[in-house]
Amino acid sequence: MSTSLQILLCVAVIIISAKLAGALTARLGLPLVLGELLAGVVLGPTILNIWGSSWFIPGAASGGVSVAVVFKVLAQIGVVLLMFVAGLETDIAMMRSAVAPAFWAATGGVILPMVGGCLLSHKFGFTWPEAIFIGTILTATSVTITAQTLMNLQQLRSRAGSTILGAAVIDDVLGLIVLSLVIALTPQIKSGEAISLRSLLLTLGKMLLCLVTMFWWGPPVTRWVFRQAEKLHGHHKEVAAALILAFLLAFDAEWLGGMAAITGAYLAGLFVAATPAHAKVTQEIHPMINAFFGPIFFVSIGLEVNARHLAGGIGFFVLLLLIAIAGKIAGCGLGAFTTGFSKRESLVVGVGMIPRGEVGLITASLGFAAGLVASNVYAQVVILVLMTTLITPVLLRFAFPGRPIESTVDSLGGVEIRDVDAMPSALDGLADA
Amino acid sequence: MSTSLQILLCVAVIIISAKLAGALTARLGLPLVLGELLAGVVLGPTILNIWGSSWFIPGAASGGVSVAVVFKVLAQIGVVLLMFVAGLETDIAMMRSAVAPAFWAATGGVILPMVGGCLLSHKFGFTWPEAIFIGTILTATSVTITAQTLMNLQQLRSRAGSTILGAAVIDDVLGLIVLSLVIALTPQIKSGEAISLRSLLLTLGKMLLCLVTMFWWGPPVTRWVFRQAEKLHGHHKEVAAALILAFLLAFDAEWLGGMAAITGAYLAGLFVAATPAHAKVTQEIHPMINAFFGPIFFVSIGLEVNARHLAGGIGFFVLLLLIAIAGKIAGCGLGAFTTGFSKRESLVVGVGMIPRGEVGLITASLGFAAGLVASNVYAQVVILVLMTTLITPVLLRFAFPGRPIESTVDSLGGVEIRDVDAMPSALDGLADA
Repeated sequence: MSTSLQILLCVAVIIISAKLAGALTARLGLPLVLGELLAGVVLGPTILNIWGSSWFIPGAASGGVSVAVVFKVLAQIGVVLLMFVAGLETDIAMMRSAVAPAFWAATGGVILPMVGGCLLSHKFGFTWPEAIFIGTILTATSVTITAQTLMNLQQLRSRAGSTILGAAVIDDVLGLIVLSLVIALTPQIKSGEAISLRSLLLTLGKMLLCLVTMFWWGPPVTRWVFRQAEKLHGHHKEVAAALILAFLLAFDAEWLGGMAAITGAYLAGLFVAATPAHAKVTQEIHPMINAFFGPIFFVSIGLEVNARHLAGGIGFFVLLLLIAIAGKIAGCGLGAFTTGFSKRESLVVGVGMIPRGEVGLITASLGFAAGLVASNVYAQVVILVLMTTLITPVLLRFAFPGRPIESTVDSLGGVEIRDVDAMPSALDGLADA
Repeated sequence: MSTSLQILLCVAVIIISAKLAGALTARLGLPLVLGELLAGVVLGPTILNIWGSSWFIPGAASGGVSVAVVFKVLAQIGVVLLMFVAGLETDIAMMRSAVAPAFWAATGGVILPMVGGCLLSHKFGFTWPEAIFIGTILTATSVTITAQTLMNLQQLRSRAGSTILGAAVIDDVLGLIVLSLVIALTPQIKSGEAISLRSLLLTLGKMLLCLVTMFWWGPPVTRWVFRQAEKLHGHHKEVAAALILAFLLAFDAEWLGGMAAITGAYLAGLFVAATPAHAKVTQEIHPMINAFFGPIFFVSIGLEVNARHLAGGIGFFVLLLLIAIAGKIAGCGLGAFTTGFSKRESLVVGVGMIPRGEVGLITASLGFAAGLVASNVYAQVVILVLMTTLITPVLLRFAFPGRPIESTVDSLGGVEIRDVDAMPSALDGLADA
C-alpha cells in the first residue's frame, strides 16, 4: 500500500478509536482524554502494534517515509495548537494575581522530584550524570491534560487552575533551564571537566532575553497583526492570523530561546486572548482541535510506548513513579500552601502538576539522543511520563469529590451546555467555557 | 535546525504567504486561489526555492524526513478535505437533474484532449505508448479550483455549476479508467504483446463494483454513523464523524476501486450533505480548511514545479497546453451544447473543466514511476497542469462578465456577506453560500 493510502486509513482509524474510547471513559465519569490516550496504548506496540502490521509497512515507492513518522509530525503540530488553545483560555488577570503561589509551586515541584529522582537513580547504580538526567526528566510539567480536565470541571479559571497554569509556565522554564544546562554541559560532565561558567550564563541569558522580548513585544505585535488581518480580503483571517502567531512564537521559543516550542505557542495564546478577535478565534479553532489534531496527538502518545518494556526493573520503575507523583504533590502543594492556599487547593495544585506529557517525552528523547540514558531506561521513562499523564485526570477528579459539572451559560456565545452530566471531550469544555 | 523546528517555521511562512498573496489577487478582482497558487510558485524552485535553502535542509537528527515530504503529506490530507467540502456543497437534486449534460460534457472532454495530445506527441517523435500516456494525462479533470471559483461567484448551484461538478466526477471515473488501463497494460504495451481482455475487464469491473457499492451503501451508512455519533458523549462529534467518513471513503475509492482517493472524499461529502448534520459540519469544517489545509495545499502545488524547465521544448509545450485548453472547452462545451445548454453556459462548462490539478499530477507521477514518461516531459506536464489550474479562475471570471458578486443571505446561519465587492478566499464563499 502506498504511504498516502496508509495515511488515509490511519487518520480514520485513529479518529474512530479516539472518539469511541473517549466516549466510553466519559460515560464512566472519567475524562475523555483518558480514553483517547488508552486508545493509543491499545493501538500501539503494547497490544495491537499497528505500525508493525502489514497494513502500515512503508511501501517501496513511498520514498522512505513511514506512516509512523508522518503521525509524529501531525502530533507535533497538534501539540502546538493544543498549547495555543490552552493559552487562549487562560484568564490573564487571574494568572497575574497568582504569580507568587505559581512561582513557589513551580520551584517546589522542580526541586523535590529532581533531588528524589537523582538520589534514587544513583542508589540503583546509575552514574551521577545519568542520575542527574533522570532527575531532570522528572522536573518537567506538561499541563495540557490538566488544563483540559480543569476545563471539563469548569475549574480552569479558579485560583488553583490559574496557579497550575502559571506554575506550569514557570516550571517549564525552570525545567528547561535545567535541561538545557545538562545538555549543554554533557561533554564536560562525561569527560569529567569543570563546567564552564560562560556556557552556563550564555544558555541562561538566551532564555531570559527571549522571554523578556516575547512578553515585551508580543502583545503589541499581536494587536498589530490582527489589525492588519482585519484590512485584508478573505474570510477566517482571524484564525489564520492566530495560527501564524502560534507557529511563529513556538518557533522563536525553541530557536532563539532554546526553550520548548510549546512555551511559545502558549504565550501566543495568551496574547491573542487579549485581542478583540479572541472570541472568534476560540470558536473557530475548536472543531479543528477536537476532531483532528487532538485525537491524533493523544493517540500518538499511547502509540509511542510499549508497556511490556516494564518487565525488567519493575522495582526501580515503581519507586521512580512514586517519586514523580509524590514529588510534585508535595513540592508544588507545599509551595501553594505557604502562599496561603487551603489544604484542598494545595492538593489540587500538586496533583495538577503531576503530568510530564510531551515536555517529559522531549526531555527524555533529547537525553537518549545525547547518550545520557540507555534504551531500557528511556522506555521506562516514556512509560512513566504516560502513567503520570494517565493518572492525573483520575486524581484530579477525586480532588473535586462533591463537585458536579455545572451548567454554565457560555460567556462568549450565550450557548448553554445541555449535557450537564457528561464529561465533555478533551478541550471540548473550552467551547463552552 | 531540527525537522520539528523547520515545520513550525514553514507552516507559518506558507500561511502568511498564501494569505497575503490571496488578499492581493482578491483586491485586483481575481480569485484568491490564484494568489495562493502563485505564492507557492514564488516560494518554489522557480524563484526562491525554499526547500533548497539552508533553513530547510534535512537535519542529521531528523531521521531522514525532509520538510518537503511532510508538506506533501499535509497537502494530500488537504486535498481530501477540500474535495469533501466540495461534495458537501454540491446541490444533489440539481446534480441529478444534470446527469445527461454532465455525461456528455465529460465524454467530450475525455475524447478530444486524449486524441489531440496523443497525436501531437506522436508528431513530436514520442513512441505510441508515450503518446497515449501524455494524452491520458490531459483527460483528467480536477474541479477543486473551479468549484471554489464558482462558489465565490455564487454560481456553484447553477445549472452550469452542477453540470461541471457532475461531469468532473464522471470525467474522473472515465479518466481513471483510461489511466488504470494504461498502467495495468504497461508491461504488455512495452513488450509489444497483445493486451489481455481479462486484465482489462478486471480493472473495469473493480471500479464499477466499488462505485455501485458506494452509491448503494454510502447514504444509509452515513446516516447510521451520524445517528451513532449523536448518542456519544463529547462535542464536535459531527465534524469528527464527517472526517472519518471522508478519509474512509477516500481510502476505499483508491484501495478497493483503484480510483483517485479524492473521488471517495467527494462522494463522502455528497452523502453527508444529505444528513441533518450538514449545516453544522459545513460551518465547523471551514476554518480548518481556509486557515490551514487550504493554504498548505495551494502553496504546495506551486512548490512542486520549476517553470525554468520549460526552456527546452517550449514549442511542444505551448501546443500541448493549447490542446489541453481547447480540447476541454470544445469537447465539454459541445457535450453541454448538444444537451440544450446556451452558448454562454456551454462555454462556462468547457472552461470549468480545464484544470487538471491534483488528478493530472497524480496521473503524471504514476506514469513517471512506471517509466512511461521521461523526466523532462514529466516537468512539462506538471507545469501544464499548473497552468491549466492558474488560467481557469481567470477565464471563468471573464465567462461571467457582467455578473457582480451578489450579496446573499446565508441560507444556513442567516449571516449576510458584508464585503460584496471582494472576491472571498478559496472556499470562503462556502461559509456564506
